[in-house]
Amino acid sequence: MSTSTTDNKSVEDTTQQLEGLTTTTTTATAKPAAAAVPEKKHKEKKESKKKFVLKTPKGTQDYTPPQMAIREELFNNIKSCFKKHGAVTIETPVFELKDTLTGKYGEDSKLIYDLQDQGGEICSLRYDLTVPFARYVAMHGIRSIKRYHIARVYRRDNPVMTKGRFREFYQCDFDIAGEYDLMVPDAECVMLMCEILESVKVGNFVIKLNHRKLLDAIFAICGVPADKFRTICSAVDKLDKMSWELVRKEMVEEKGLDGEVADRIEKFVKLNGHPRTLMAQIRAEKLCDGHKDAIATLDQLDVLFTYLEAMGCLDRVSFDLSLARGLDYYTGIIYEAIITESDRGSVAAGGRYDGLVGMYGNTEVPSVGFSIGVERLFSILEEEAAKKKIKIRQNQTEVYVCQMDRDINITERLKIIAELWKAGINTEYMYRATPQPKKQIEAASDAQVPVMVLIGKTELETNSVAVKNMATKQQEVVERSQLVAKVQEILKSIDQSQISNLFK
Amino acid sequence: MSTSTTDNKSVEDTTQQLEGLTTTTTTATAKPAAAAVPEKKHKEKKESKKKFVLKTPKGTQDYTPPQMAIREELFNNIKSCFKKHGAVTIETPVFELKDTLTGKYGEDSKLIYDLQDQGGEICSLRYDLTVPFARYVAMHGIRSIKRYHIARVYRRDNPVMTKGRFREFYQCDFDIAGEYDLMVPDAECVMLMCEILESVKVGNFVIKLNHRKLLDAIFAICGVPADKFRTICSAVDKLDKMSWELVRKEMVEEKGLDGEVADRIEKFVKLNGHPRTLMAQIRAEKLCDGHKDAIATLDQLDVLFTYLEAMGCLDRVSFDLSLARGLDYYTGIIYEAIITESDRGSVAAGGRYDGLVGMYGNTEVPSVGFSIGVERLFSILEEEAAKKKIKIRQNQTEVYVCQMDRDINITERLKIIAELWKAGINTEYMYRATPQPKKQIEAASDAQVPVMVLIGKTELETNSVAVKNMATKQQEVVERSQLVAKVQEILKSIDQSQISNLFK
Repeated sequence: MSTSTTDNKSVEDTTQQLEGLTTTTTTATAKPAAAAVPEKKHKEKKESKKKFVLKTPKGTQDYTPPQMAIREELFNNIKSCFKKHGAVTIETPVFELKDTLTGKYGEDSKLIYDLQDQGGEICSLRYDLTVPFARYVAMHGIRSIKRYHIARVYRRDNPVMTKGRFREFYQCDFDIAGEYDLMVPDAECVMLMCEILESVKVGNFVIKLNHRKLLDAIFAICGVPADKFRTICSAVDKLDKMSWELVRKEMVEEKGLDGEVADRIEKFVKLNGHPRTLMAQIRAEKLCDGHKDAIATLDQLDVLFTYLEAMGCLDRVSFDLSLARGLDYYTGIIYEAIITESDRGSVAAGGRYDGLVGMYGNTEVPSVGFSIGVERLFSILEEEAAKKKIKIRQNQTEVYVCQMDRDINITERLKIIAELWKAGINTEYMYRATPQPKKQIEAASDAQVPVMVLIGKTELETNSVAVKNMATKQQEVVERSQLVAKVQEILKSIDQSQISNLFK
Repeated sequence: MSTSTTDNKSVEDTTQQLEGLTTTTTTATAKPAAAAVPEKKHKEKKESKKKFVLKTPKGTQDYTPPQMAIREELFNNIKSCFKKHGAVTIETPVFELKDTLTGKYGEDSKLIYDLQDQGGEICSLRYDLTVPFARYVAMHGIRSIKRYHIARVYRRDNPVMTKGRFREFYQCDFDIAGEYDLMVPDAECVMLMCEILESVKVGNFVIKLNHRKLLDAIFAICGVPADKFRTICSAVDKLDKMSWELVRKEMVEEKGLDGEVADRIEKFVKLNGHPRTLMAQIRAEKLCDGHKDAIATLDQLDVLFTYLEAMGCLDRVSFDLSLARGLDYYTGIIYEAIITESDRGSVAAGGRYDGLVGMYGNTEVPSVGFSIGVERLFSILEEEAAKKKIKIRQNQTEVYVCQMDRDINITERLKIIAELWKAGINTEYMYRATPQPKKQIEAASDAQVPVMVLIGKTELETNSVAVKNMATKQQEVVERSQLVAKVQEILKSIDQSQISNLFK
């Protein structure tokens, strides 16, 4: 399912604003690589000085080690939620045949990245993970699968780097495909979305939920002509960013809807609240009476609400008749999660799409799922870490081995280090043959390493090592043969998780 | 560092062989999505029937859940080795500005995938992880970093899917950049490569090692003209796939080398063996005497061998004067790992490259590293799993919740499941409102789930649940409030690792 990140679409790239770190530089002449490198080569290099811009492409970025530490924690968190629900995982190529993507995204198709025709097949970078999933299910003849897929997707959209809106970004998708009983997998998807957002400390959230068929029924009840359903649906979809007045204007002036019909729509799309309360109101006020599809869909939603109640997550849901979701392929429930204290838009969204797999073959495989907009969660977590001034460890080094005397042969450290590595202990040392004691101690404490192993001449003579617990500052000299056991004992006593306070 | 997978280069794509699973199909008309969908839309869909090929692009493939289970285990294994050495990780975009890649790969540049010019920057898919790493180091002004990067790279090469040679494939790179003492980071790279290959059950391996400057010195000693060093080096690089006779022919007939010079080269490139033995032989036979650079490089290699010996991995190394490595940018030691029982070519390779970062700025940052050719390791592991008939679990579900009476309301299962999920237990159930007991038990045992939780009418009346250990077949009825504790107790007693026997 695709989380829409296309609030303000534009594919113009002519101004070429350079986001992020940008350095203009000249290609420097490479240092002589080898003494024996022929003179002629050197000359060529000197001549080829050429100005170029040192940057990543527009809308993309590098992730630095501290950012990666947070991201890895976040991904592991989401992955373990997916696994808790028994999901398997798949991987698909980063590009698909262009034909595979054609006709799936409506107007958004203009945002698809194409590969150059270099002789061969015509390919495009994937735009989301849902269409490749549907292609996968059809191609492998699968009748049922519950899978997650964490991968990057590509959109030639107008990037807003500070808001977590990129041209290259991760999605974390979970989908259940297969013929199952009414609302059973749908309820699990909503439940799982709640569990994921609860597991990440991003603040309070609400899951807005609606049903495509109910929306269509409401349009019919209000008197929208059948051929205007999808375009009016698109207009309703803008209600989270635009006032009703502007949406009404679009409906009437741009889309030629009768003003009275629009006013009848207003009455419906302003309705939202606790699922049980709003359901009672719709029934009490007989808002949908007389429309068979509407009544049937409301009954189906009642089943969903009962399941969500049994699982304890119904109170997270707001039944919201204004929720429309942009994509054409939804056929059942639609839902999206909003962080109530943040202006980042939806952080997760999805719905039921029963027709997509059938577009690739002769077999329909009804599906429901959602996508976590993990870049937005990441930018919230990153802000949080900055606010709390959390110093994020970039690596997971447990031990730093120092020699306290510059005369000691480096091989003495190498023997110790190899032994610790063999025991599976994350160990570093200084890449110097004769390092200063002070420099090594500085490096160890800069890296927030919990244990230091020290050798001096005395230790070498007595076949022993000093082991220091950096938290308690206690240092102990043990026999050389007890090194690994001692280090493991200290490591066991230490809680090394330093990023995990970002998560509940 | 790039593991060369380009044994037989070809960018012709005209024959369009369709590797792997290929299905020709027609776009089926989507089922009516909603009863209220306008008639006109349906008609349009029916008209747009168009033949298309249901496949992934040439040289790419989908990974299925059992493949992903092996891959995930393999990646976690490699990642923990990288972390054991204190490496941080970074991420770079999948495409770079075309200029960033220009002039880095020599002849192989023709294999680079370009993105279509859609107005904006001209970009190309990354060809390896080394060049983006050098760009990253230069752009962020980094003076020292030890990082790993696990990601896919792209080459418009002639794919051989059965041999693990693809157009889209993973590399696992480890590099140490920074000014350090002679051979210290180099030794760590060789050591780490050994540790990774030992940690994965892929059979015996040998690490061939040579030095670019020694090779250049040998060429000089043999009388190769300085401007022919690189092209003769390329010819030597083919010795692992071609006989000396053919390589000699290429040198003399294609590259215009004097026959006597070629014969002198033969004497050198046939030399290989244990580092200490070959070093002694070179010195005893005075093979490099009189050439200053050769003598200096041999002394440096002695330092490396001493470090490797101290760490206990020197016996894995074969000092091999025929090893040349294709890429131009190496400036120091070069090495590659070969699985001795397999014909898959090198499974890991790397070397020192002191000039690459300097090509992006004014600062040289000397670097050494390697790349694990993980697709080849994966294909060995996959064969192994097939040979041993290991049934690979696709997910990590721990508990399956069944209702033994079709009349019980599904919400009873939902309450149990939500409780288990809340306790962090991986739980599944059947997506049916009134499932048959037999079908549920079949599903649970198909999925190799270690614990089953069962409820019947008796259990509901007595506020209890039955918990079954699927390994021992023991079933116990416990109070409803004891459910989570009982399940956790059984899970603790079970070794759930089922793929880990592929690894040591």
